[in-house]
Amino acid sequence: MPVDYSLYLVTDRGILKGKDLLEAVEEALRGGVTLVQLREKDISSLDFYNTALKMKRLAHRYGVPFIVNDRLDIALAADADGLHIGQGDLPLEAARRLLGKGKILGYSVSSVEEAVYGEKNGADYLGAGPVYPTGSKPDAASPIGPGALRSIRESVSLPVVGIGGIGISNIEEIKSTGIDGIALISAILGSRDIKEASENLVRLWRKE
Amino acid sequence: MPVDYSLYLVTDRGILKGKDLLEAVEEALRGGVTLVQLREKDISSLDFYNTALKMKRLAHRYGVPFIVNDRLDIALAADADGLHIGQGDLPLEAARRLLGKGKILGYSVSSVEEAVYGEKNGADYLGAGPVYPTGSKPDAASPIGPGALRSIRESVSLPVVGIGGIGISNIEEIKSTGIDGIALISAILGSRDIKEASENLVRLWRKE
Repeated sequence: MPVDYSLYLVTDRGILKGKDLLEAVEEALRGGVTLVQLREKDISSLDFYNTALKMKRLAHRYGVPFIVNDRLDIALAADADGLHIGQGDLPLEAARRLLGKGKILGYSVSSVEEAVYGEKNGADYLGAGPVYPTGSKPDAASPIGPGALRSIRESVSLPVVGIGGIGISNIEEIKSTGIDGIALISAILGSRDIKEASENLVRLWRKE
Repeated sequence: MPVDYSLYLVTDRGILKGKDLLEAVEEALRGGVTLVQLREKDISSLDFYNTALKMKRLAHRYGVPFIVNDRLDIALAADADGLHIGQGDLPLEAARRLLGKGKILGYSVSSVEEAVYGEKNGADYLGAGPVYPTGSKPDAASPIGPGALRSIRESVSLPVVGIGGIGISNIEEIKSTGIDGIALISAILGSRDIKEASENLVRLWRKE
């Protein structure tokens, strides 16, 4: 499945204000997001697995690849299209070996050093950030800013997706860094109209 | 590796009162526990993985198999001897398929129905309980009691290990049910002298 990294939705139940997660993701898919990552924290393995199965089917109905955050076991059991891991997850080499060659492996980086490490050790794309301050991930590191994002982009040949605090207000600045796509949490899932928010972001990202 | 299910240590950081987990497990191994299961909840995947690697090496120094609770990815990445899953974890069939044939797969059951299901769907042994009330797992189901434990034992040919509230005071009653071993958390890790507590439990379990 060819991967379009441009508008990458990452889920977060915490900002849905009671809205159903799968319905919210479907609205975003209708609005044009090109990749979906399921991120869960305080949930049983069985609930994570069942949600992953449902979200994979949903994403595939829209021709969009489905990625699981952190949990290699859930990615394998649900036969997801890929896994995204961060610096506090399984080591990259172990994840690559166990996931197999046919799946997408994403890796979170905050520096050029981590980006180069990711490229050398099996990542298929990099999630770089947090670019701006964000409330979606309270334990996130300090923002790296668009300058560091550009340096990361220039240090590797893998696709690079920016993440962290990205939205309508800074999308032009992000585009100027030359990265391949943007990962969005609050800017989509925190919107009153998720489909419309997704459409606006897609339009602004693709505008020449 | 032949498996001796008789004295099965299951870890719980919450009852260690600041004691180092690996040191506590080593004391229990010196006291004679025959199987070790690493159970972690609020810990990053990387910390879980690193702890699993260390605990596996430690257990193997004492000739004891090392099992990971819930997380198939950690079991695979750390090349543990096995995985133990419960009713809220990955489905048994998926765990069996991904773990492979050469590894031990344990399955938690609370009824004859679940035990028979486990035997038919790939479990290598069953953890049956909670037998008695317990503080180690606040979300555990109601105690099943020694009568139900005996019924579970008689319904399957797999090894059955009792778990939940087992200790010095009820070990004779547990032995009378005919099960293959006892899983212990508080009775070992909550003791002032972990090695001595393990030795006493081993002695009582083996006494004719």
